[in-house]
Amino acid sequence: MTHILSAEQFSKKDLLQLFEAAKKLQKAKAITQTMKGKILATVFLEPSTRTKLSFESAMLRLGGQVISIPNAESSSLQKGESIADTARMVSTFSDIIAMRTGEKGQVAEFSKTSKVPVINAGDGTGEHPTQHLLDFYTIWKERGTLDGLTLGLMGDCKNSRVLRGMAKMAALFDMKLVFIAPEEVQVESDIQQYLLERKREFKMANSLTNVIKHLDVLEINRIRHEYFADKERAMKIGKQFILNRITVMKGKKNLIVLDPLPRVNTVQEDVDALPQAKYFQAVENGLYVRMALINQLLA
Amino acid sequence: MTHILSAEQFSKKDLLQLFEAAKKLQKAKAITQTMKGKILATVFLEPSTRTKLSFESAMLRLGGQVISIPNAESSSLQKGESIADTARMVSTFSDIIAMRTGEKGQVAEFSKTSKVPVINAGDGTGEHPTQHLLDFYTIWKERGTLDGLTLGLMGDCKNSRVLRGMAKMAALFDMKLVFIAPEEVQVESDIQQYLLERKREFKMANSLTNVIKHLDVLEINRIRHEYFADKERAMKIGKQFILNRITVMKGKKNLIVLDPLPRVNTVQEDVDALPQAKYFQAVENGLYVRMALINQLLA
Amino acid sequence: MTHILSAEQFSKKDLLQLFEAAKKLQKAKAITQTMKGKILATVFLEPSTRTKLSFESAMLRLGGQVISIPNAESSSLQKGESIADTARMVSTFSDIIAMRTGEKGQVAEFSKTSKVPVINAGDGTGEHPTQHLLDFYTIWKERGTLDGLTLGLMGDCKNSRVLRGMAKMAALFDMKLVFIAPEEVQVESDIQQYLLERKREFKMANSLTNVIKHLDVLEINRIRHEYFADKERAMKIGKQFILNRITVMKGKKNLIVLDPLPRVNTVQEDVDALPQAKYFQAVENGLYVRMALINQLLA
Repeated sequence: MTHILSAEQFSKKDLLQLFEAAKKLQKAKAITQTMKGKILATVFLEPSTRTKLSFESAMLRLGGQVISIPNAESSSLQKGESIADTARMVSTFSDIIAMRTGEKGQVAEFSKTSKVPVINAGDGTGEHPTQHLLDFYTIWKERGTLDGLTLGLMGDCKNSRVLRGMAKMAALFDMKLVFIAPEEVQVESDIQQYLLERKREFKMANSLTNVIKHLDVLEINRIRHEYFADKERAMKIGKQFILNRITVMKGKKNLIVLDPLPRVNTVQEDVDALPQAKYFQAVENGLYVRMALINQLLA
Repeated sequence: MTHILSAEQFSKKDLLQLFEAAKKLQKAKAITQTMKGKILATVFLEPSTRTKLSFESAMLRLGGQVISIPNAESSSLQKGESIADTARMVSTFSDIIAMRTGEKGQVAEFSKTSKVPVINAGDGTGEHPTQHLLDFYTIWKERGTLDGLTLGLMGDCKNSRVLRGMAKMAALFDMKLVFIAPEEVQVESDIQQYLLERKREFKMANSLTNVIKHLDVLEINRIRHEYFADKERAMKIGKQFILNRITVMKGKKNLIVLDPLPRVNTVQEDVDALPQAKYFQAVENGLYVRMALINQLLA
Repeated sequence: MTHILSAEQFSKKDLLQLFEAAKKLQKAKAITQTMKGKILATVFLEPSTRTKLSFESAMLRLGGQVISIPNAESSSLQKGESIADTARMVSTFSDIIAMRTGEKGQVAEFSKTSKVPVINAGDGTGEHPTQHLLDFYTIWKERGTLDGLTLGLMGDCKNSRVLRGMAKMAALFDMKLVFIAPEEVQVESDIQQYLLERKREFKMANSLTNVIKHLDVLEINRIRHEYFADKERAMKIGKQFILNRITVMKGKKNLIVLDPLPRVNTVQEDVDALPQAKYFQAVENGLYVRMALINQLLA
């Protein structure tokens, strides 16, 4: 039994197999009943509509069913039940679990006493591996490969689980990385070390303008004011890190712009109509990646 | 692709076709799998248990599946996502959407970026078209026709989306209308104009007693205190506009009494046992009308 | 049409038939579609994740579907709808209902106007019959019989609906009962009378240590501080009534330890690994008992 907990657990081969399976499902428009008789439990102790609906829709489109603990308020955790007991209980009633929580490490803890596979759908500042899967699947579908590309990661490179995880997963491929962040939240030594150990090239920039023309992919994530001592500077920086149409037009014609969404001070709406904007397509791609992943885990 | 947004969008032919389809489903006790493999998303940003369960039950009885954003608290709207982006997201994961909100016009706004049909399940003081569909279907089933009938609309004729919508839909048929309301919330010129343009007869009354003997149908909706400057008068009027058994008995024997429910100061419980009381039957009829509507939208 | 409202409504024959059916489902790993086309409505006006998911998983594993009123906040009860009207409404959209509430007697009231079978999934200090069904099923599965056993009920024997209901259901069989409770919450005359009328033996103890060696089954439920005037004593007693590994080891080798869960100051985690610990197994057994019950009610 395999749990999906971290960006680090995948091999290059794992990803390419998964993407081929997702592509097949997407081509077939998901006419399949592989999960008939199986139940997915969604345990979202913190709200995340997009991710929750994506997993639920994926399971239903595979012919399976869904049960759900909608939020912390109505869960037995509120009555003081331990994570271990909650995992025993939920895994008694389901065949696979997607779990979201605000607390780093809690999904891994949950998985220890689960009797069925658990997918980490975000654990605070920890991990959110299926977000990377859908982003990399989107790149792979657009370009046909993941090697030889330059990936820009823009925003809070220090704290964002999306940007940190993307960097780690990128290290599986022959990718160059550019971290675009203000110095307060620039990528830290742990991720740098991770890349160096895997002999991957990267550089740092504090502005997109100078580097955009080199990028094949740009993933953007928002600057959070809470990490800045100087709130005025945070506000100013936040504005500079919003992506607009003019900037995108300075990049390559086939640049792929990604955003995990919901967007709050990341991509401006005037970018939406550009062919470079792939963040909506990535949401749809995510459905098929999650279908493929569920199929794989319960095969 | 058609969205269901307003009472005004239907033709007489539309309604009669829909009602025939609903009747067939109701006769067959809904043994059908027309929606197999399809997903309904219920987006209820404001609670409405009856309407939500009705749509969900309708979809499941058609062999489909349901995903749900249960309320505003757990939706991505809370994280500041725009209605346009939420619509893009939800419609990626579903085949049809039923949406309820407290804000007039928000469902129409949502439908603009939705990739699948959207049904307005109530948008504040705006519209709630499927409520009218089930009420008219109930009348049609009981009387075999919608022409030649006199329809009483009692309560807040100025503000109630149910009464306003009923008046508009009634204009499709050869119906006479009687608006029964205290002067503070009597029907306004916009609806009067709507009827006049369509050459429909209507009159106004401030008490049910004088007009009940002329009515074939009586739809009741509650008086809301918030629209009255004089709260004491609101209280007094509110009591006068509660329907009791004695009053119903003064009407025609085959009078049809309707109430959108939940009833709060509308129909007294002593009316329930009378054959004139059709509001519970209308709830059941609503299930089949919504099934027929879903079938039609995804045909 | 039968509602499941109380521990008192079952005969010995009822239980044994149900348990045989549950066992068959459990052996077959629930590959069945007996509920295809049917809908369970879960109406949980008070949270109870374990019970809710158990009912929902049971219905889905029978090939049925589920609709849900997740909690009091989003229900029409909040808009002032009566329990009678809510029951009429929910039962229009479903084929069977599982209901939980904080108010004793409310499920019985609800069942009066329901058009479909209602299962009481806990009504405050009232009843929670399916909890007993799964506990007795677990004992029956372990021992092959329910006769000739000594059942210890430990904790708040005065107020706990679990312990009170267990005592009543035990009276159907040739069982001896031992109530283990501090005097403040020891079993009261109503339950004593119930047992005496049915000629069942019971005794009372204020400590487990002296009686554990006689027990075949030990069901534990927590001491609630709110029922003690002396809070210090409540705290002290509460600690004494936590079950640990050392105490369990003093009992029979084939002792069955049960706990309705979630456990909060009942069974210590060091008991989990002992073969006597059957509370997790009971959760799984509960799934099959509920499946058998749903099958029976809709047969």
